[in-house]
Amino acid sequence: GEFAKIDHHRQLRTGFPEVIWGPGKTPDQIAQIMAVMRQRTAVVMATRIESDVYTILQKKVRGLQYFELAKICAIAPPIIEPRFDGIIGILSAGTADLPVAEEAAVTAELSGFRVQRLWDVGVAGIHRLLSNRHLLESVNVLIVVAGMEGALPSVVAGLADCPVIAVPTSIGYGASFGGLAPLLTMLNSCAAGVGVVNIDNGFGAAVLAGQILRTCEKLR
Amino acid sequence: GEFAKIDHHRQLRTGFPEVIWGPGKTPDQIAQIMAVMRQRTAVVMATRIESDVYTILQKKVRGLQYFELAKICAIAPPIIEPRFDGIIGILSAGTADLPVAEEAAVTAELSGFRVQRLWDVGVAGIHRLLSNRHLLESVNVLIVVAGMEGALPSVVAGLADCPVIAVPTSIGYGASFGGLAPLLTMLNSCAAGVGVVNIDNGFGAAVLAGQILRTCEKLR
Amino acid sequence: GEFAKIDHHRQLRTGFPEVIWGPGKTPDQIAQIMAVMRQRTAVVMATRIESDVYTILQKKVRGLQYFELAKICAIAPPIIEPRFDGIIGILSAGTADLPVAEEAAVTAELSGFRVQRLWDVGVAGIHRLLSNRHLLESVNVLIVVAGMEGALPSVVAGLADCPVIAVPTSIGYGASFGGLAPLLTMLNSCAAGVGVVNIDNGFGAAVLAGQILRTCEKLR
Amino acid sequence: GEFAKIDHHRQLRTGFPEVIWGPGKTPDQIAQIMAVMRQRTAVVMATRIESDVYTILQKKVRGLQYFELAKICAIAPPIIEPRFDGIIGILSAGTADLPVAEEAAVTAELSGFRVQRLWDVGVAGIHRLLSNRHLLESVNVLIVVAGMEGALPSVVAGLADCPVIAVPTSIGYGASFGGLAPLLTMLNSCAAGVGVVNIDNGFGAAVLAGQILRTCEKLR
Amino acid sequence: GEFAKIDHHRQLRTGFPEVIWGPGKTPDQIAQIMAVMRQRTAVVMATRIESDVYTILQKKVRGLQYFELAKICAIAPPIIEPRFDGIIGILSAGTADLPVAEEAAVTAELSGFRVQRLWDVGVAGIHRLLSNRHLLESVNVLIVVAGMEGALPSVVAGLADCPVIAVPTSIGYGASFGGLAPLLTMLNSCAAGVGVVNIDNGFGAAVLAGQILRTCEKLR
Amino acid sequence: GEFAKIDHHRQLRTGFPEVIWGPGKTPDQIAQIMAVMRQRTAVVMATRIESDVYTILQKKVRGLQYFELAKICAIAPPIIEPRFDGIIGILSAGTADLPVAEEAAVTAELSGFRVQRLWDVGVAGIHRLLSNRHLLESVNVLIVVAGMEGALPSVVAGLADCPVIAVPTSIGYGASFGGLAPLLTMLNSCAAGVGVVNIDNGFGAAVLAGQILRTCEKLR
Amino acid sequence: GEFAKIDHHRQLRTGFPEVIWGPGKTPDQIAQIMAVMRQRTAVVMATRIESDVYTILQKKVRGLQYFELAKICAIAPPIIEPRFDGIIGILSAGTADLPVAEEAAVTAELSGFRVQRLWDVGVAGIHRLLSNRHLLESVNVLIVVAGMEGALPSVVAGLADCPVIAVPTSIGYGASFGGLAPLLTMLNSCAAGVGVVNIDNGFGAAVLAGQILRTCEKLR
Amino acid sequence: GEFAKIDHHRQLRTGFPEVIWGPGKTPDQIAQIMAVMRQRTAVVMATRIESDVYTILQKKVRGLQYFELAKICAIAPPIIEPRFDGIIGILSAGTADLPVAEEAAVTAELSGFRVQRLWDVGVAGIHRLLSNRHLLESVNVLIVVAGMEGALPSVVAGLADCPVIAVPTSIGYGASFGGLAPLLTMLNSCAAGVGVVNIDNGFGAAVLAGQILRTCEKLR
Ligand SMILES: Nc1ncnc2c1ncn2[C@@H]1O[C@H](COP(=O)(O)O)[C@@H](O)[C@H]1O
Ligand SMILES: Nc1ncnc2c1ncn2[C@@H]1O[C@H](COP(=O)(O)O)[C@@H](O)[C@H]1O
Ligand SMILES: Nc1ncnc2c1ncn2[C@@H]1O[C@H](COP(=O)(O)O)[C@@H](O)[C@H]1O
Ligand SMILES: Nc1ncnc2c1ncn2[C@@H]1O[C@H](COP(=O)(O)O)[C@@H](O)[C@H]1O
Ligand SMILES: [Mg+2]
Ligand SMILES: [Mg+2]
Ligand SMILES: [Mg+2]
Ligand SMILES: [Mg+2]
Ligand SMILES: [Mg+2]
Ligand SMILES: [Mg+2]
Ligand SMILES: [Mg+2]
Ligand SMILES: [Mg+2]
Repeated sequence: GEFAKIDHHRQLRTGFPEVIWGPGKTPDQIAQIMAVMRQRTAVVMATRIESDVYTILQKKVRGLQYFELAKICAIAPPIIEPRFDGIIGILSAGTADLPVAEEAAVTAELSGFRVQRLWDVGVAGIHRLLSNRHLLESVNVLIVVAGMEGALPSVVAGLADCPVIAVPTSIGYGASFGGLAPLLTMLNSCAAGVGVVNIDNGFGAAVLAGQILRTCEKLR
Repeated sequence: GEFAKIDHHRQLRTGFPEVIWGPGKTPDQIAQIMAVMRQRTAVVMATRIESDVYTILQKKVRGLQYFELAKICAIAPPIIEPRFDGIIGILSAGTADLPVAEEAAVTAELSGFRVQRLWDVGVAGIHRLLSNRHLLESVNVLIVVAGMEGALPSVVAGLADCPVIAVPTSIGYGASFGGLAPLLTMLNSCAAGVGVVNIDNGFGAAVLAGQILRTCEKLR
Repeated sequence: GEFAKIDHHRQLRTGFPEVIWGPGKTPDQIAQIMAVMRQRTAVVMATRIESDVYTILQKKVRGLQYFELAKICAIAPPIIEPRFDGIIGILSAGTADLPVAEEAAVTAELSGFRVQRLWDVGVAGIHRLLSNRHLLESVNVLIVVAGMEGALPSVVAGLADCPVIAVPTSIGYGASFGGLAPLLTMLNSCAAGVGVVNIDNGFGAAVLAGQILRTCEKLR
Repeated sequence: GEFAKIDHHRQLRTGFPEVIWGPGKTPDQIAQIMAVMRQRTAVVMATRIESDVYTILQKKVRGLQYFELAKICAIAPPIIEPRFDGIIGILSAGTADLPVAEEAAVTAELSGFRVQRLWDVGVAGIHRLLSNRHLLESVNVLIVVAGMEGALPSVVAGLADCPVIAVPTSIGYGASFGGLAPLLTMLNSCAAGVGVVNIDNGFGAAVLAGQILRTCEKLR
Repeated sequence: GEFAKIDHHRQLRTGFPEVIWGPGKTPDQIAQIMAVMRQRTAVVMATRIESDVYTILQKKVRGLQYFELAKICAIAPPIIEPRFDGIIGILSAGTADLPVAEEAAVTAELSGFRVQRLWDVGVAGIHRLLSNRHLLESVNVLIVVAGMEGALPSVVAGLADCPVIAVPTSIGYGASFGGLAPLLTMLNSCAAGVGVVNIDNGFGAAVLAGQILRTCEKLR
Repeated sequence: GEFAKIDHHRQLRTGFPEVIWGPGKTPDQIAQIMAVMRQRTAVVMATRIESDVYTILQKKVRGLQYFELAKICAIAPPIIEPRFDGIIGILSAGTADLPVAEEAAVTAELSGFRVQRLWDVGVAGIHRLLSNRHLLESVNVLIVVAGMEGALPSVVAGLADCPVIAVPTSIGYGASFGGLAPLLTMLNSCAAGVGVVNIDNGFGAAVLAGQILRTCEKLR
Repeated sequence: GEFAKIDHHRQLRTGFPEVIWGPGKTPDQIAQIMAVMRQRTAVVMATRIESDVYTILQKKVRGLQYFELAKICAIAPPIIEPRFDGIIGILSAGTADLPVAEEAAVTAELSGFRVQRLWDVGVAGIHRLLSNRHLLESVNVLIVVAGMEGALPSVVAGLADCPVIAVPTSIGYGASFGGLAPLLTMLNSCAAGVGVVNIDNGFGAAVLAGQILRTCEKLR
Repeated sequence: GEFAKIDHHRQLRTGFPEVIWGPGKTPDQIAQIMAVMRQRTAVVMATRIESDVYTILQKKVRGLQYFELAKICAIAPPIIEPRFDGIIGILSAGTADLPVAEEAAVTAELSGFRVQRLWDVGVAGIHRLLSNRHLLESVNVLIVVAGMEGALPSVVAGLADCPVIAVPTSIGYGASFGGLAPLLTMLNSCAAGVGVVNIDNGFGAAVLAGQILRTCEKLR
């Protein structure tokens, strides 16, 4: 459609195809963009799709899958074999952070990466993390999702021997100010080597993690 | 002096005498207030006294002590025996947080409390804290001082079996915004039971810790 | 469930069991966590439960109680005898602050502490507080809940001879900025010895107050 | 000079002559504006004049007075008899707030109003205010100056039977954020009838108080 | 009720009776407080009452009036004769600011003051104000209500020979940040003698204006 | 030098040559960049040059001019004839805003535009502006510079029949927050057609005004 | 109506008639204002009109048009011939920014200007902009609409040889803080000559662009 | 020293040794920590060392090197051969961003990585970047340093086929708010796959980039 200029070469330039960001688009616009994109790309993804929008979309888009917790719609083969070496470990601090953590996990899997999940290991009970240290050692890049005070990535980065991507979430209240608190926490991490993405941006974290494994592929 | 109404009954009402807050007062005003207070109180304290102000003060105030790192001036007996049961444990995350941590420690000691210090145990190397867990167990109230992202109090509160008082510091830069980052971190702590004081407010933390031990004294 | 790693040892480590934070969890997740926890803990609590969520939960969880004003669900014996010495005094500045004040009160009572309530004694009519000074003297720790400008804890801390925990609330409008105004007020209290918790965090205030009475118990 | 368009009719329009705001002007510009204004106005005032600027100014401006604490320079008769009925009561919460409180007091006196000062009566020792309640009753408008948490105006407005003007000061540190904390406190006052001026704006408070007494004069 | 400590002496102390602030109270609580207050006060007022709350209240409270635009409920005599000399002029910058301006106007009238309204005279068409300058001269205190950039009070204060009370409103969008923009504008007014109240606080402005006229009454 | 990639084609692309922004560069770096640029451009400009930096620069750069109030250094012909039709009117609200207003004026004049200045016409004395309305009508684009509450551009835009560019300044204190207050004021202007530039950015305002006159030139 | 003072001379003074801002007005108020305005102005416009408000309005206002995407209601001739020379180019960074971009486009067209649209050319795929450089060269003023990080205007202003008006949108999430992020981006543009309007203010951008073309008309 | 607990195992755990953060430490403390660390680590680094601190340090620490632009002190072999495959590309938007960009470059080189620098390629002249696209393709991870509006990383991430690390700088003024503007820009990047570090944190960016190349090494 005229309202969108789909960036067909993005995959060629950056390794990742354009992904549709749902908010602020009508279901019709999303369906039309998907129709154009599916002619060129094997996997077409849209993020931030509420279930009622999915209900409309599935009538317009043939073969549309829905990952409810992650709020992701996709046109994709039923099974996606990992196409890249390496594992992306994804940690969440609490149960309420799961939608963001799953946005990261599903994005990574649909993009051809292997994912290892570890949920609810926040610092209030640090032993939950420490008793899973082997996991930190068996992955090649870590995505750490946390709301409230967002302290988990600092602790993880002090323990892990791989790049750490921190995702603040809007889970919290009061002086969390919509995720500002964990965002600042992560940016000020006293453990070095932490890259931060936007509040609730599981998608962006997965792309960065994927870029890291792709750059390794090329270095091999 | 007319410019100040000294609150001589504060100790009676709240257990702690008034303490002079240095900033915004001339050395002369401080000296005059000290002169009046020393007639009524055994220990007279002033906080946030830079060394050049101390140099002026010591000429006007007989027997004035100076705790340089803590930036505290005091008229006090040479040795202060602890007058209350219990121990206040004070932790700092980094070396640069020492002035604030010492403000807390010196305030507590001058007020008749026993203090146990543990410096530089920030979360970037969590083993430094974990290998000192016995200390957490041997104290009755904890003051945890941290700048940068301020994650230490959350971790401590998840481990300790006593009240935790968190003190954010202005140590950091950029998105620390003068200590806002660790302040928000501590207010949003996912471990419950953490009381937060103002940025760099080691003094207030010591008074609260002291109030806790005093209330225990009365409950006995 | 896999989505949650319940921290069964938290009570052993810190004296307080894990408590379920309602927001961002499905009723199903809450019910499942409760089912696991009730096998280990005498009292299972969930906070921030709206009445419609309770309606769903009570069908899934046998013997669930609901404290409507406090928005707390609990599996607990019908009567809970105080297990600790000392009294937690809880003050509210206005009528509209009651939900937060009750969150603190119910949490404390379910945890085995004795509570003394005093509502609607804000500083606009300071005599309401002054005529209740005996109450300030008969308790061992004070929780002071206030919205709008949040001045009450400063005044109380200048009068009381025990630790003061300040809870800012989101009650207010305009330049309250969702509770930021009373939060800053409390952090900047000119009366020392005030520990502040997050906006609307009655729960955290109660845990801190409880920690204080528990530490006294151990010191005895 | 061309760089300034002096508003000679301001006194006619609003009852108060223009006053020179010092910051951002060179001593030369200030001296030139004063030279022009003294030909038309009995009292010429400049605020926010540091003592080193005064040293330069006094060489250029004949008969210049300096109120050091208030940082006000004035060309004025040696004694100014009050020209209006009524008394402006000015309260300060702490000793460090004096410069702002004196800016208000000197402005009011130079403008022909009677002033009653009461310093250092902040809420940490509320009895200092309560034992001066007679003063609150003997004045016709109150200016209340406070830094730190800025709670004093709320308490005063709940006690006083006259208009209350609140002046937040930048005295404080950390989460005071340069006076933001007391500013928000005063704007959210749960006691109604409080008018707030800018942080440290003793001058503006005095003008508003003066306007109130002038409007009374006209109503008589 | 126990949930509220009605401040029956507020009128004696401050000249104004307590007024019920609606938000955060149940209709039942409001009705109960009104029932107690009507036994002592001639006029009982509640602010911020949405029309659906009024519908419930009118069934519980006999003779309740509703001022829809102002969102004020009152028990009051049908006609209230002004009991004080002087006139409160109320200006609004735009049509959308009317609810706040009417909150001020109705509060003032119910409290026994004479009011003169002037709506929609914002600075985008400054002639609308200038052609009403006689009004500025015929009143004794001015309340100026403005949203968006909130420039009107500065202009008015440069023209008017009486106290000016500025009320920022939350009318606007984007970088208004809920009324922060006009609030800051009014606090930084280059015309002196402006007292500012909270965003949307027409009520507080009316109480301050009333206090001014009352203090004049006493000075006579 | 290697540390800078001078954008020689900027004038071709956008009509304006690159201008050196002084802060964060060493005098040496500035001198080297000037040396390269003077070989290609008739007028070389650097902004935000403090007088002590100029003192160093003038020894390294032949024929360097300094506009002290504007803090601009330039290599330029002694007299610059206007090369474009139309007049840029520049207004300042106060005397203290002159450095920013002059930055705009000098930039415009060095770039070949005709400038009309009008200083110190802020809204506290609106007649100063109204008595200069002929000026508003004789120019083709207006730059309005204001600090404090920054209300002037709104008033001007309601009167003027040409584009208005608003420049907030950092002149002010307290709740000005370094110019945030006038910035928000200008962005929320209730008079439409106001384009805002960064705080203190007289330079950027002049470039935009120049672009407007240049686009007119091309349309002719 | 009495609630509004319509500014009939605004068109004479500034070239643009008053436009009704919908939010905060009842449909009835809007209809009444339109009824008065249509007697004097050829085109009557109201912005920010949701479709349900339009449904009510169309029953009260004869011949009302609705531009759904732009949320603009208008009484206007069916076809509006451009009355001014020059073209306003309007760019949007993403599809979700279209409502704001269309508010600008429709306002401009209804005001008699020629518009050239270019949608979805954000910097994530910069070639989409670069391959449309001819468009940048064929217009006389550019409006650039962008949410998220809002980088597009900087890039455009570095390429275009005409004035650039930047419109930040509230499209985004998390650290966008309701459009604050792109607003700051645009204000700090390293390319000079960018005038910024309020977040989502397509209307204001169109008026400014129109003023530019009108001033050119007068210069001819 | 007792004041510091050096984290000797950090290199073992995370691949990078502890690095001394200069601010808030006395030269003596820094020298003592260096003395301890040099016994265990081949390269000892301290960041944020002003030249006057270096002058003191070099007298206490044998063989200390100083990288002036980067403000880094190091004990290191004269030449450090790259120990890891891959290249870290470092881009700066402006000349004034060089100190931050060099902090990244020197950290990376001292840690054994190969670095490729590209300075002054900001978006105001986008061709400077586009004409260096081959460089983007020849590196394996990119660090992009930008102040002002910070748009460069978005554009780069839309072009590059490798991970992008964005470093906002405090270069700018006014609405940059100390680097907040570019920080928000980078967090909201519409191009995915950007990891952000703290304002001016060149050090942290280099560690993250190094972690990426190290993880590739392990994957090989
Ligand atoms: N619209 C209003 N804005 C600000 N304060 C109000 C308003 N209406 C009533 N109040 C004040 O709110 C207080 C009542 O608070 P509460 O105890 O929560 O009912 C009273 O003392 C009133 O002075
Ligand atoms: N201390 C002060 N605080 C706030 N405003 C002041 C102060 N002193 C003078 N003013 C105002 O500043 C204006 C002068 O600003 P200017 O145009 O820069 O000379 C006058 O109109 C005074 O009303
Ligand atoms: N979408 C809009 N954004 C900003 N200002 C607008 C908008 N629509 C109309 N306006 C302005 O709002 C003013 C009307 O305000 P009011 O008196 O409340 O109707 C008019 O002068 C218009 O210039
Ligand atoms: N320039 C820098 N920015 C951020 N963190 C740093 C910097 N330099 C060193 N660090 C970290 O700061 C920590 C040292 O803190 P401290 O214990 O105060 O010396 C080390 O763990 C480093 O990882
Ligand atoms: Mg959990
Ligand atoms: Mg350390
Ligand atoms: Mg009440
Ligand atoms: Mg005092
Ligand atoms: Mg209007
Ligand atoms: Mg002036
Ligand atoms: Mg798109
Ligand atoms: Mg450059």
